[in-house]
Amino acid sequence: MASASRHWARFLHSMAAVVSARLRPHVKPRRVKIVTSVMGFGGGMWSLSFFKATKEEESVSTQASKWMSEPISGVEYLEENSKDMKCRMETLIMRIQAEFCRALEELDGEKKFHVDRWLRKEGGGGVTCVLQDGTAFEKAGVNVSVVSGTLPPSAVQQMRARGKKLQGDKLPFFAAGVSSVIHPRNPHVPTVHFNYRYFEVEEEDGTKQWWFGGGTDLTPYYLDVDDVVHFHKTLKKACDKHNKKYYPEYKKWCDDYFNVTHRGERRGVGGIFFDDLDTPDQEQAFQFVKSCAESVLPSYIPIAKKQKDKPYSYAERTWQLLRRGRYVEFNLIYDRGTKFGLYTPGARYESILMSLPLTARWEYMHKPEPGSREDELVKVLREPKDWV
Amino acid sequence: MASASRHWARFLHSMAAVVSARLRPHVKPRRVKIVTSVMGFGGGMWSLSFFKATKEEESVSTQASKWMSEPISGVEYLEENSKDMKCRMETLIMRIQAEFCRALEELDGEKKFHVDRWLRKEGGGGVTCVLQDGTAFEKAGVNVSVVSGTLPPSAVQQMRARGKKLQGDKLPFFAAGVSSVIHPRNPHVPTVHFNYRYFEVEEEDGTKQWWFGGGTDLTPYYLDVDDVVHFHKTLKKACDKHNKKYYPEYKKWCDDYFNVTHRGERRGVGGIFFDDLDTPDQEQAFQFVKSCAESVLPSYIPIAKKQKDKPYSYAERTWQLLRRGRYVEFNLIYDRGTKFGLYTPGARYESILMSLPLTARWEYMHKPEPGSREDELVKVLREPKDWV
Repeated sequence: MASASRHWARFLHSMAAVVSARLRPHVKPRRVKIVTSVMGFGGGMWSLSFFKATKEEESVSTQASKWMSEPISGVEYLEENSKDMKCRMETLIMRIQAEFCRALEELDGEKKFHVDRWLRKEGGGGVTCVLQDGTAFEKAGVNVSVVSGTLPPSAVQQMRARGKKLQGDKLPFFAAGVSSVIHPRNPHVPTVHFNYRYFEVEEEDGTKQWWFGGGTDLTPYYLDVDDVVHFHKTLKKACDKHNKKYYPEYKKWCDDYFNVTHRGERRGVGGIFFDDLDTPDQEQAFQFVKSCAESVLPSYIPIAKKQKDKPYSYAERTWQLLRRGRYVEFNLIYDRGTKFGLYTPGARYESILMSLPLTARWEYMHKPEPGSREDELVKVLREPKDWV
Repeated sequence: MASASRHWARFLHSMAAVVSARLRPHVKPRRVKIVTSVMGFGGGMWSLSFFKATKEEESVSTQASKWMSEPISGVEYLEENSKDMKCRMETLIMRIQAEFCRALEELDGEKKFHVDRWLRKEGGGGVTCVLQDGTAFEKAGVNVSVVSGTLPPSAVQQMRARGKKLQGDKLPFFAAGVSSVIHPRNPHVPTVHFNYRYFEVEEEDGTKQWWFGGGTDLTPYYLDVDDVVHFHKTLKKACDKHNKKYYPEYKKWCDDYFNVTHRGERRGVGGIFFDDLDTPDQEQAFQFVKSCAESVLPSYIPIAKKQKDKPYSYAERTWQLLRRGRYVEFNLIYDRGTKFGLYTPGARYESILMSLPLTARWEYMHKPEPGSREDELVKVLREPKDWV
């Protein structure tokens, strides 16, 4: 009903301190062939740009030429402070965003990501990438945010409630994270969500606390056991490199967290989830988070590629929309990030709510036919399983 | 994907203490012609069953023959205790439910309400009526609940937070209310919501506190000023009979309450909203609530009748679905009743979530074209107006 440029113009006006997006020209990446570890994913072979094209070892400016946008802190600043964890995290999440967006664009084949780079007047900003109404993806959002300022009291309260000891009232903080939700069109392709973040808070006496958090989880509409096993195996492999205890612990945390309590159902088949990670040391925690973030693409893209052209019926599409209604329920009622975000004055709600599907449906008292494929999924959502 | 009876059978199983619905045969009501006070509503004349057919003066058993179901407390009990406010309220809300459901069925012309009578093992139960996927109404829910038991700590906390002084921890309570959300198919017909309720709480020392609450509010997709004026005038008339201060005060309360804070938009064009009403005395407070509840039908049905057959475009339908997304946001993020309901263990979530539309839509950064009819609506949602 309104052109994209007009949307953007009015948004800029309403945000006051937002600056316009500066998009770098896309550099054509080298194409590499990757052999997946699990058979059955597109004949075992699939091609993907960018997967190797953006190496962490490359200089920040070489990496930045492939990012979706100028980073929030600027390339020069990231390069000059490349040992600072804040900058290392921003560099990582800009790379992860670009790699994931390019992979999705390639799979979609039709639509490209719309990129909004925005700044907050309180400090920092973000890069929101949304692909909407594509061939393979109905709505795909990949958001980077790098924000700083003073913690709102509600956030301090939330942190203390989960056991953080924080001295003082007005606490300067820094947070950098990448988060994404992908809602495909085909009901045989699962929805995926991931979020990896780094937090720093300075207490009254100048003490600095830091921690990492994040996770990746899968929400299928129909159960394909091979897909779910591939997904969990890929995450487990990323975890096991760092600590054999991580996967079982974070798999359970994920099942417990993504719980639509009132329905007694998990949101999906889980994955991993963790928070407040500050051990064994900052370097090792960062390396773990990096492995997790890098495992998103190989955990999900092969599944999407394998399933995206499978035929589906109207009934299967309706079931997908009903399940998307449950996804909305989780995100708006229970998700800590969404609630915290929306209750924060001046939050960029469009970036928070990009996680919602393009379409969702609610039918009164809908129950799948016993023994049907829909029923098979619901059983797994009621009783989380071990997949590896 | 499953037949209604199978849904119902599985639900019964899962609720453990739920008993099967006992539906009374529907008595054919007298038809009466009613002249509406505002011109332009279907030529000034519209016919409606039940509007006069169920008089409060009739005996409980005569009234009950027209209700959607056996009342929760039983007809005999209501008749024997017809001076008790708990029974008077249950009788009122059963009548309001039936009158409203019959009026909607008549307008829809195709679908009838599905009726679920359910009991809670903790005490009481409800009658949930849903009409889904009809010609005029995409989803219409009218729910009566009459529950008793011990207040959950979260409810006590919520009541104390809004200023109630309650002594003790384990407080016996009684609550009876009718609530409804109607989502029409045609984008020119607004969504309406109403809820009228009566509460009793017994403190540790045996002191009994009671109060009424409720409201009616309208959510149009396109602004028809005549409709909005008719709606507000009808509510004002109901209020003015009791206290000239009620309408202005409760109109403002409604604008403040139905606020999608993160978007800086009201949910709709408001109406009335009040809570904790225990003045001037119980009888007069009840009479006021009765007037409000009886004003729902004449405030809304003429609008639905006038607009329901108006032609509409695909773009108008898409706009309606986007606005329904905002409705979902309000209900799941901010609405006190929904949150309180869903956080209560053993709550019948299907009755709470029947307020959600059949379909809703979220587009990233959608903004209506300046000067369009969509934009005209949003302006009013940003700056609530006085309509009478």
